[in-house]
This record gives sequence, structure tokens and C-alpha cells, in this order.
Amino acid sequence: MKKGQDLSVLRHSAAHLLAHAVSELYPNTKFTLGPATETGFFYDMLPETNFKESDLPEIEKRMHEISERNLPLEHTQISKKEACSLYKDNQFKLEMINNLEGDTVGLATQGAFFDLCRGGHVDSTGDIKFFKLTSISGSYWRADRNGVALQRITGTAFYTQKDMRLHEKKIEEALKYDHRRLGKELDLFSFKDEGVGFPFFHPKGKQILNSLVASMRKRLEQANYKEVETPLMLSDELWKCSGHYEFYKDNMYFSEVDEKSYAIKPMNCPGTILIYKDHPRSYRELPLRLYEFGKVHRHELSGVLHGLFRVRAFTIDDTHIYCTQEQIEKEILTNIGILQETMKKFGFDSVKIALSTRPENAMGSDKIWADAIAGLKNALKAAGADYVIQEGEGAFYGPKLEFKILDSMGREWQCGTIQLDFFQAENFDLTYVAPGGTLKRPVIIHQAIYGSLERFLGIIIEHYKGNLPFWLAPVQAKILTITDEQKSYAHELYTQLKEQGVRVEIYEGSDPLAGQIKDAQMKKIPWMLIIGNKEVENKTVTLRHLDGKQEFGLSQKALLEKINQFTL
Amino acid sequence: MKKGQDLSVLRHSAAHLLAHAVSELYPNTKFTLGPATETGFFYDMLPETNFKESDLPEIEKRMHEISERNLPLEHTQISKKEACSLYKDNQFKLEMINNLEGDTVGLATQGAFFDLCRGGHVDSTGDIKFFKLTSISGSYWRADRNGVALQRITGTAFYTQKDMRLHEKKIEEALKYDHRRLGKELDLFSFKDEGVGFPFFHPKGKQILNSLVASMRKRLEQANYKEVETPLMLSDELWKCSGHYEFYKDNMYFSEVDEKSYAIKPMNCPGTILIYKDHPRSYRELPLRLYEFGKVHRHELSGVLHGLFRVRAFTIDDTHIYCTQEQIEKEILTNIGILQETMKKFGFDSVKIALSTRPENAMGSDKIWADAIAGLKNALKAAGADYVIQEGEGAFYGPKLEFKILDSMGREWQCGTIQLDFFQAENFDLTYVAPGGTLKRPVIIHQAIYGSLERFLGIIIEHYKGNLPFWLAPVQAKILTITDEQKSYAHELYTQLKEQGVRVEIYEGSDPLAGQIKDAQMKKIPWMLIIGNKEVENKTVTLRHLDGKQEFGLSQKALLEKINQFTL
Repeated sequence: MKKGQDLSVLRHSAAHLLAHAVSELYPNTKFTLGPATETGFFYDMLPETNFKESDLPEIEKRMHEISERNLPLEHTQISKKEACSLYKDNQFKLEMINNLEGDTVGLATQGAFFDLCRGGHVDSTGDIKFFKLTSISGSYWRADRNGVALQRITGTAFYTQKDMRLHEKKIEEALKYDHRRLGKELDLFSFKDEGVGFPFFHPKGKQILNSLVASMRKRLEQANYKEVETPLMLSDELWKCSGHYEFYKDNMYFSEVDEKSYAIKPMNCPGTILIYKDHPRSYRELPLRLYEFGKVHRHELSGVLHGLFRVRAFTIDDTHIYCTQEQIEKEILTNIGILQETMKKFGFDSVKIALSTRPENAMGSDKIWADAIAGLKNALKAAGADYVIQEGEGAFYGPKLEFKILDSMGREWQCGTIQLDFFQAENFDLTYVAPGGTLKRPVIIHQAIYGSLERFLGIIIEHYKGNLPFWLAPVQAKILTITDEQKSYAHELYTQLKEQGVRVEIYEGSDPLAGQIKDAQMKKIPWMLIIGNKEVENKTVTLRHLDGKQEFGLSQKALLEKINQFTL
Repeated sequence: MKKGQDLSVLRHSAAHLLAHAVSELYPNTKFTLGPATETGFFYDMLPETNFKESDLPEIEKRMHEISERNLPLEHTQISKKEACSLYKDNQFKLEMINNLEGDTVGLATQGAFFDLCRGGHVDSTGDIKFFKLTSISGSYWRADRNGVALQRITGTAFYTQKDMRLHEKKIEEALKYDHRRLGKELDLFSFKDEGVGFPFFHPKGKQILNSLVASMRKRLEQANYKEVETPLMLSDELWKCSGHYEFYKDNMYFSEVDEKSYAIKPMNCPGTILIYKDHPRSYRELPLRLYEFGKVHRHELSGVLHGLFRVRAFTIDDTHIYCTQEQIEKEILTNIGILQETMKKFGFDSVKIALSTRPENAMGSDKIWADAIAGLKNALKAAGADYVIQEGEGAFYGPKLEFKILDSMGREWQCGTIQLDFFQAENFDLTYVAPGGTLKRPVIIHQAIYGSLERFLGIIIEHYKGNLPFWLAPVQAKILTITDEQKSYAHELYTQLKEQGVRVEIYEGSDPLAGQIKDAQMKKIPWMLIIGNKEVENKTVTLRHLDGKQEFGLSQKALLEKINQFTL
């Protein structure tokens, strides 16, 4: 095996090696899919008991042992029948076998371990020497959130030790900016055993969340969206009517009120639907754009919880627009605009868009679907947005737009969805009085821009490497003085800025300036306002940015103007 | 019985009459106390099944029947033993009998009905002719929120029909401003069967809540309070440690997470305590003022739910200050200031304050209590605040300040409490590193200013009779035009105001101005901005206030200045 060869061959083989090791250590694990990726490989599996991060070293060790055994990899074609009998206890592989075309399937064998495989791997386990397991996360069979929850072990592999080392250096770099680590270092949030998967926001983390909320609220109010608040618990009947109970109950929490079962809401839609139904609606009220920063609770297996990226309680910036068929296009156009503007504010300049179209077994007439998809396409065109089409991947109740952003480390995140819904209006018998007095059904558009605010907070912490811009920083400015002589002016400035709503602190100690600067840098405070005798004399400040750039002799007026320019 | 005689005699007798009627209609009702009040009378009772408002007419009818029977009232002294045997099934009356001094108790008898009574009543049931039952509400035995929940039937009585009619007119007036009625008329909030006792906030109601939150947040942030957010569900262990589980579990809702019982939080304290415990604290961090707009859920019997005044889920502006003994006084002073300033903003100029001191069986040393109470008194003095002392009525874990406001209809509301707490720091083993390195216990100050935001919203809706001031009004201004000719300028103004964050609407129809004004008045919009040709020509507006006062020829600049002056 020569250097420079296709990395995906090596990595796909490493996925086999991973499964081989796991099968020896945890024989009852069920394997699903283990592909190579752009950065390494993963294997999705259903363990008997969930794996923990701490299990990875042992698995990695066993992989090295199997590598040292230098087992040849043999690839054969076997009949589907034979394959089914090999996998008779594994519903995932059985499903895969049945979905493959032809009468035979490929099987790769190394020692006692075998795996379904199209081919394309190294000659022997001994060829896989430089690899590393990097994480455990949650996934779903067929990526269906309502499907079976699996665990994904992710790793990477290289042909040479040098490439591996380079990669490890990159990883270390990324680990430094892991939001869980920065969240602790910067005192933003925590998790406690008393509420597994439910984040606690400390003052600085809550401040960032508040800025996210305020910024979104401002944008939405400008576009005449109206905020509502619906209860956290609602009776099971409602969730049965909406269909959530049937499809989602294993991920829901329940309580009891007046001897009736209530669900703690996993979604905000049914609550706002009850507000829509509060009184008869006229076409004059449409489009009715109701949004809510709605806290939802959804159960996740404890093994797949992951910082703020995967929690059991989170807040969605959840909009439900009730409108006519004809209004869809304009509403979507507005929303795409809000989304693009929002993402730009965080430096996410490139937003990828995917349009999922009508699946088989869809509800609603051909015309409704055709019109809706034409409306979405027109809106995308009007927004000047590129997009890809995911043919047939819409929900049965309507087509969908999904938005992906690229962060500063080149990682892709799905944020933002627009989902048309022809179903719930039917389900809840929603109507409006059309011109002329006939009753018609509104369309519902479900929209979220941040998606989960908690997850979005995690994303931007990593994206900015903790160096939040002025408008988002929990502490925006710190006043430093060269000696104690300037403290009185410093306090004057502090009071003035605080009254203006600036999140400002003052360095209370008497340490040398270098120490004060270092402290502010550690806390990632974007602006240091440095005051010496000259500044006191001229009633100015020196503004030192986190990156070291300095602006000398800023008058207080110039400072306030600068602040206004950078504020929310 | 002559006119003009002491009303309390008549009303106390009417309370007997009420109990008499209830005892005939619902023989298993247990009676507790039925005093006369300043405005009428009430009787607190424990019915077998909760009474509903709709039961009142029948009870009132029976009261009239008993009045017509013209039964003489006889008052006798009987032995306590005899009294105990009469009330052998009524734990409340038994407790009252045992708490009375002397060997005998008074008993008033009218027909087959008898009641414990000190005396002071009319001669015959026939003397009670003009009365009315006004409401049912919830109460607690001995006013102890952790005690038995009772139902209170309230009514009033007068000596003459004329007085009664005058009173009824007043009542009608008050009913017009009932927040439940205004809430529906102004489309602020609603209640639904799918979540009994859990309010749904419609856009306009949510907007008012948001203004309440923003105003409080601004005030608290200025005083260096720090906002946090704690989970809605936390494990039972925590509530057992805090003592809430033992004392409060019948009013708590529970769920299950990972096969462990979790409580939906009825209080915010334990959550913020976990944030305090997140890492070792130094005296340099104290006072640490953590506040939360925390949504709590507390069960109430469905019969005692009452609009926004008594709900099952509400948001507390809940502050927990962790400080040293020495810091108590200054913290309380700041808080009293914030409270008084807040209440003044709503026109609640008179705030009554009560200081509850050390009860029997209190925890903590004599010195801690003496110092704390001296601190509270000093703070009250420094704030220039009058107060009454409620001797021995503090909680076992610390003294308390309670604040009462008087609304525009002369009704008193308890809003705002400051509770010192020497207990939870012990309980949760909270410490801070004191100068010199020793570990000490902080004191916790629990503070709320609005108390329940939902209840406070109900209070101000009634207080303002729905006419919310500019800063609170969900729609602040409506632009009206004399003819359609001015629409283009109207839209220009609309865009400009909206960009400034004004909650402005534009009247889209072409109705005569009088109709437009009437519509804005019905919706209780504080400012109408009227535009005719003259206003277009001069780029001005006429500002018409809800009360009819008008300001002509306001330039846009003058208008914006006015807006800034009245904004949050």
C-alpha cells in the first residue's frame, strides 16, 4: 500500500477495523453503516449499553492489536439469502441487504469478523497503522429523528505518521475552542447531575442568549411578526390531535394535572394553533405571523448528550405563519431575507439552501404541491439564492427549505428551516373567513432561524473561538488605569457608559497595566479602555482591541458614537 | 334595628346567614371563620366539592328564604367541652375552640343552625334584607400557603336598599375593568381547556409582559444584578434537600427523566443555589446578585383559579443575593429603592411596608437575628420608609419585609417581598472564602418586586382600567388620516416610527375620522397621530391622546422627542 493513495480506501478499512474491535469487546453490538468521510470515518451502531467517551481508549487499543495481527482482508460475493442468515439478528443490515439491487451482496472478511462491503479496502489489517478515535455522538437510523437512536463512533486514519501528527495538531486546536471548554473557562454555562441534559446559564451565558433574543426580536418585530407565549405543559389530548403523541411520545416527558396526563411540550406548534383558534379569523388578519421563544423538552439518551449541541431542553425561535396559498411566496421571501441578514451578522456569509420536494404518499392535491413548490422557487429566485433540490425528501405534509452555514473552522451546521404544512390546519380544523364569507383553510409555515438557541450559542462560541464581537460579548468593555491616580476619572466614565447600557466593568485592583490587559484578554473582553494621566487631562480614552490594535485619544463623544455603531 | 347602625354587626350576621344557607344546601361543608370586613363579609369554608361561581345565585336565594323565615338569633355561652362535641367533625372549629381563653365559648343560634360567635349581631334573620354574594376565591387555613386550601365566599350587606344600589353600581363599574374581561376585549391573553390554569399570552399581552421584563431588567442590571437561567425540571433529590419536597409536594408537578423522578420547579431558589455552588466562591465575588425571570409551576385547586390573579404557572422576577451578614443592610436599601422606583412608575405612590420579626422556634443565633433585624430597620430608615412591625411573624429561617400597594380603585395588593434566609446556605453547605482563607456561610436574600408577573399584569390592567400608559401599551400609536390623500405621508411616518422601535399601526381603511378615532379608543391606544392636508404640508402631526386632549402641529422632531421621553 503506497502513500498518497485514496484516503477513503484506508478510512473505510479503518471503519471495518473499528467494528471488528467493538465486536470482540462488546459482542452484542449491532452494526449499521461505517463509511469513510472527508475527514475520517465513522461507524453507527446500536450497543447493548451506551458507550462513553472513556470507552474509546480501550477500543482503540484493541484496533491496534488487530492491526498487529495483520489479518488479510478477503472480499467475496455471497447470495442475499446467505447474507440474511448471517445477519438474522441485525434488523439494520437486513434492511440494507433487502434494499440492495441484484441477487448477491459483497462481504469483507478479516479473521473471524465480516461485514457487508461494496469493496475498496486495504489488503490487510496491518496496513492500518495510524488512526485515532475522536468522539462519540448520537445519530439516528436513516438519519430519521423519529427512528432508532444509534451511537456514532468517529475517528480518522492516515497513511503516514507525519500526516497523523499534523491532523492531531489541528484537533488540539479545535479542542481548545470546544464550546464546553470555553463555556467553563468563560463561566457561561454548566450542566449538573440534578438536571441531566438541562443547561444552567450563568450570568455571562444568559447575557449572550439575551442578546441573541433581542436581536432576533428586533428583526422579527420590524417584519410585523407578533410574539406569543404558550404554556409549557398541555394535555395529552392536544398532542394526540397534533400527531406528536403517536410519533414522538418516547421522546416526550409527561406529568399529571388534575388526574389528567399532560405533556411537557416538545414542540411549540400546537400551543400557537390554540391561539389561532381563540376566535374566528378573517382573511384581513392573514398573514398572521406568531413567533415564540419557546422552551421545548425532548428526551435524548444520556449517552448522546453533547454540551449545548445536544441537550434535553432548548429554546426555539419558532414562528408559525398562518396565511393563504397566495401569500406563501412573499412570506418565504421575507423569511429568507431575515435569515440571510441574521447569518451575515455572525459572519456566516455563505448559506447553503436545499429544497425538499414532494415525497411519495404525500397529502394534499397535486396543485397545492405544485403551487407551493413554484412559490418557494420564486421566493428563492427573488432572494437571489442558489439552492439544491432534494427530490422527494419533503415531509408528507409539505415541502421544506433547509439552510446550512459554514463556520470559521470550515464546518457545516444546519441552522434554519422553513416547512410548509398543509396538514395541521386540516387536523385542527383551522379556518378563516375568505372574502365573500366562505370558510377556507390557512396554510401554516413553520420557521426557525437560529433553530435551537442553545445549540446556536454553542456554534458561535466555537465559530468565534470565544472572542465574541462587541454586540454579543457579555462584558463589552473593561476600564483599565495606568495608576490609581486615574481611578476617579475611571469611575466617572464607568457610570456614564453604564447609564448608556454598555456592559462595562472597571479593573478594581492596582496591578501593572500589562497584568490588567492580560486579565481582560483571558476573559476575552473585546474592548479595553485604558486611562493614563494624558487621558484624564484630555478627557479621552485609549481603546485597545482584543487583537492588540489601539486607538489613541478617543474623546468620550467619539467613544459613544463607536459604541452605538457596534451595538445590537 | 335602625339605619346607620354599625355595618359590621349587620355584615357579621350576614356571614352567619351565608353559612346557614350553605349548611342547608351542602350539609358536609366545614366552616372556619366568617368575619365582617371593611367592604362586606366573607366566610372561609372547606366544601366537599369545590363551589363554582355559578353556585352563588342558589346560595343567595336560600339566604333570602332564611331571612324571610325571620328566625331570632340567640346568643349563649356554652362549655368548651360541649362546643368540642358540637364540632367533633370540624378540625378548624376545634382548633379555634382550643385557642380561645376561658372555659366557655359563645354560640349564636338561628333555627337549626349554630355557629361559634363572640356576639354582636342583629336580632333576627329578617333584619338582613339587602345583601349580595360577590365572589368565590381561594384562601388558606390560617393564611398559611402550606396549610389547608379553603374556599372563600365573599359578599356584602347594607341596611337600606338605596345603599345597596349605590354599592352595586360601584361593583358594576369594577366589573367593567375586571382584567379577565379586559384581557378578552383587548385580546391580551386566554385560558384553554388543554392547559387549565396555564395562561396563553396573545401578541398584545406578551408585548406588555415584555415591557415589564425589559423595564425590570434595565433597573436590575443598573444595580449590577446578574441574570441567570435555570432548568424547569430538576431531580427530586434537590427538592428534598431544599425542604420543598416535604412541605410543598402536594402543590408540585412531577415528571420522570431516565427513570428518576423530577419536579417541575415550583421555586427558583434551588436552581440558582446550584449556580452558586458551581465553583468555590471568594468574598470578592460577594454580594453576588443572581436574578431570574423564572417560570414556576404550582398546583392550585381548579375551583380557586382566578384569571391571572391565581394561575398554575407564573413567572417570578426572582432575585437571590448571596452576601455576608455585614452586606445585608446595603443590599436591602438598594432593593427598597428599586421597588419604590418601580411602583412609582405605575403610579403606585404609596407603598406600605411590614417587617416580620423572629418567630418562636427560629433557627440561627440571637445575634444573627438581632443584627439582621437591625440591618433591615436601618435600611428602612435610610430609605425614609414608614413600616409596621409584625412581631414574631417572620419565617423560621429569617425575617421578612412585605410591600403592599394601593391601586386606583383603592384596593390593596401585596407585591414585593424581601426574605432573609439563614437556612438554605446551611442546608446546601454554601460557603465562601473569607479574607484570611477561612470558609464562611453566606446569607441568602430572596427578593421579588413584581412577584408574579402574570398577577402583576392583571393588577395593572385593572389599575389602569385597560388604558395602559404609552410605555406599556402594546400598540402605542395609531396613524389616522382625514382622507386617503394623506396615506402616502402616513406610510412615510409609519416607517420612520417603526424604525425607531415605536409600536405603531396605521389605519388602513377609508372611514370618516370620527370612526377611526372611535376604533382607536375602543382598542385603548394611547396616542392617535392625525394627519390632514395641513399636516402633510407642514410635515407635522396632530397628537390626540386617549382622553381627547390634542396637541396640534407637532413637528416630527418634537414627536420623536416626546416619544423618547415616554419610552421605557
